Amino acid sequence: MIDIEKANQTAVSRMMSARPILKGVAPASEVIPGMRPNLLLHAGPPIEWARMSGPLRGAVIGALIFEGLAKNERDAEALVKKGEVDFAPCHHHATVGPMAGVTSASMMVYIIENETHGNTAYSNLNEGYGKVLRYGAYSKEVIAKLKWMNDAMGPALAKAIEASGGLDIRALLAEALHMGDEGHNRNKAGSILYTTKLAPWIAQVTSDSALKAEILKFLGENALSVLNPVMAACKAMADAAHGIEGSTLVSAMARNGTDFGLRVSGLGDQWFNAPAEVPDGLYFPSFSSKDANPDIGDSTITETAGIGAFAMAAAPAIVTFVSGTPQDALNATLEMYEITAAEHSHFTIPQLEFRGTPTGIDIRKVVELGITPRVNTGIAHKDAGAGQVGAGLVRPPMKIFEDAIRAYAKQYKL
Amino acid sequence: MIDIEKANQTAVSRMMSARPILKGVAPASEVIPGMRPNLLLHAGPPIEWARMSGPLRGAVIGALIFEGLAKNERDAEALVKKGEVDFAPCHHHATVGPMAGVTSASMMVYIIENETHGNTAYSNLNEGYGKVLRYGAYSKEVIAKLKWMNDAMGPALAKAIEASGGLDIRALLAEALHMGDEGHNRNKAGSILYTTKLAPWIAQVTSDSALKAEILKFLGENALSVLNPVMAACKAMADAAHGIEGSTLVSAMARNGTDFGLRVSGLGDQWFNAPAEVPDGLYFPSFSSKDANPDIGDSTITETAGIGAFAMAAAPAIVTFVSGTPQDALNATLEMYEITAAEHSHFTIPQLEFRGTPTGIDIRKVVELGITPRVNTGIAHKDAGAGQVGAGLVRPPMKIFEDAIRAYAKQYKL
Repeated sequence: MIDIEKANQTAVSRMMSARPILKGVAPASEVIPGMRPNLLLHAGPPIEWARMSGPLRGAVIGALIFEGLAKNERDAEALVKKGEVDFAPCHHHATVGPMAGVTSASMMVYIIENETHGNTAYSNLNEGYGKVLRYGAYSKEVIAKLKWMNDAMGPALAKAIEASGGLDIRALLAEALHMGDEGHNRNKAGSILYTTKLAPWIAQVTSDSALKAEILKFLGENALSVLNPVMAACKAMADAAHGIEGSTLVSAMARNGTDFGLRVSGLGDQWFNAPAEVPDGLYFPSFSSKDANPDIGDSTITETAGIGAFAMAAAPAIVTFVSGTPQDALNATLEMYEITAAEHSHFTIPQLEFRGTPTGIDIRKVVELGITPRVNTGIAHKDAGAGQVGAGLVRPPMKIFEDAIRAYAKQYKL
Repeated sequence: MIDIEKANQTAVSRMMSARPILKGVAPASEVIPGMRPNLLLHAGPPIEWARMSGPLRGAVIGALIFEGLAKNERDAEALVKKGEVDFAPCHHHATVGPMAGVTSASMMVYIIENETHGNTAYSNLNEGYGKVLRYGAYSKEVIAKLKWMNDAMGPALAKAIEASGGLDIRALLAEALHMGDEGHNRNKAGSILYTTKLAPWIAQVTSDSALKAEILKFLGENALSVLNPVMAACKAMADAAHGIEGSTLVSAMARNGTDFGLRVSGLGDQWFNAPAEVPDGLYFPSFSSKDANPDIGDSTITETAGIGAFAMAAAPAIVTFVSGTPQDALNATLEMYEITAAEHSHFTIPQLEFRGTPTGIDIRKVVELGITPRVNTGIAHKDAGAGQVGAGLVRPPMKIFEDAIRAYAKQYKL
């Protein structure tokens, strides 16, 4: 007879004891296992071109232009339709990416090593706001910014991070949660902590003063600078909790803009998928929910690891961005304690008398109580090439948890 | 008949509409009105050497050594006893300084301009933690650090701030309050916001890469980097509210380590003084309240301007540093609404549904309700040359408010 409680405690303990260190930046092709020139990684569970939503298609087009494999949208689509581009979830390559999450071979990626258990995870560099690839935009400006990030900022970051000896992202997150971040949609404190910690190293390793200034400005003014290392850190923590025989804890939640996918620690590498929903939230001027694409991105790895919407109580100011009141933010965290296995030993919430964040989503509790996890998210325009239209809150469909419970019962002969 | 309510609304409106911009850094002798080589400014109300406490004496000794006016402690004391050193409160020179607040002619100071009303305020540079002049330490290391700050960092800061065009400290504070700061004892977010905003300019204006790195590290790792510009900003705001005929609002609270002094907007430049108390708080290992000096410093200018202990609700994580619980922090702010004239139009508290911080202490309410203002503070060792021993909470003596009320009744013939 399987001891589910024990399996879950093992899984969640591994998740919390994982110590993710930012060790470097390098081209995806040099570090991500299985990465190759005609492979594009994307957010969420597996999906083929025909079922891809607008923002994911837009990011695919942009990545092919960025790689020099296509000159324009038409070229890119033709290439895809000829079957010359392979697609795979980021998650299948120890990688995570916000929104469309499209990562191609020559893109610079962050390297996170979990010093406790030895596994590694990756994420691309954050582009900041405005027209950006991750929201499906692929105009000349988008590609030009990606080139600057890759050719100018990326090598400087690589040298700076190496010189620093590595940054403890779990420690940084713990600090940021005491500074009003929740680590997913609000990474304001984390991003300036990140910038401040790297700044002396950037000043030291880069010879060009104008470039130094440009990089420090880019990192410092982008309140999401640290989101991608944070996501890779959460991936490293969640992966440490994956594959525990008998565990009913969620080890990945991810959306590709069409489907919301779920993986469970004790259920191997299978995905449980159902149609992703459109988030509720606040829209930028001139946009509404009619413009919104269904939920997209791997950033739900933050909630999987016990932060994001699960740590909303720490981030009352986030409601100006995702809607609701500070009391709603408090309630969001309180509700998540009902469906989780532990209170985080490193991530604490001052507002709740330093209680640990709710960590380790138990699919049994989700189904029994009828409470799905809360997720904070950005909202992409449904059309390729458009971009972000807002930010808000969403929940995964209950069906994927029910399907996972059924698969568990079958696998473990319950 | 004087319209007190109207006078107070004028005063508090001026305080809140003041827009303090950090415009530069320069030697005190070049910018502070009345500054001269044998004058030392100090925190709090006026005091002569005979009545100065240990930490203030220590800082005086250190400043005389720093200025090259004395070689050691004995020289310095002899010089003072010969009457060759003049003392004046920082407040008499539009200046404020944390703890001992000792500011001498060649020290670099921040220049804050209130763009709304045209007044200017000053504060010295923050030394960080450990053995520091402001806590009364004056060892070789203390003086060497001051020299580096003055000769290496100061000119770089001056160039960087000038190149930036100026930093809006009110806007920075408003942001920091949404990131868990209260602006007095907790300036963690504000300090990294400050570092991040200046970093690109420092990278640009300084030619020496090692120096750039050193400055960015010094600013970024000091969670009080921004305290001094913040204090000068609060001084600029409070001064804008000073001198309003008939106003019963507090325009300065300051301690010299012996006396706690109070100034009131409608009562001119007189001080109301009474013995300062020893703060309640948390002590560093091996220290206790027996080692503590009574309350010292001009940093109560933050509470005077509606932040610090008045904004504690925004900073629940501060309790790990000053004692108490997050609920106490919330209660501190709620209590201060009882004795203030307004809710700040720029400083808001997410935890209280974005309510403005309690601003503009009304001496009538303090005396009527028997509630003195709350103050967050560092705690200095009572001996000269020692340093910081803890941090905590304190209140000014009720007597100074009662004396002020009596003086008000007399002046306005009530």
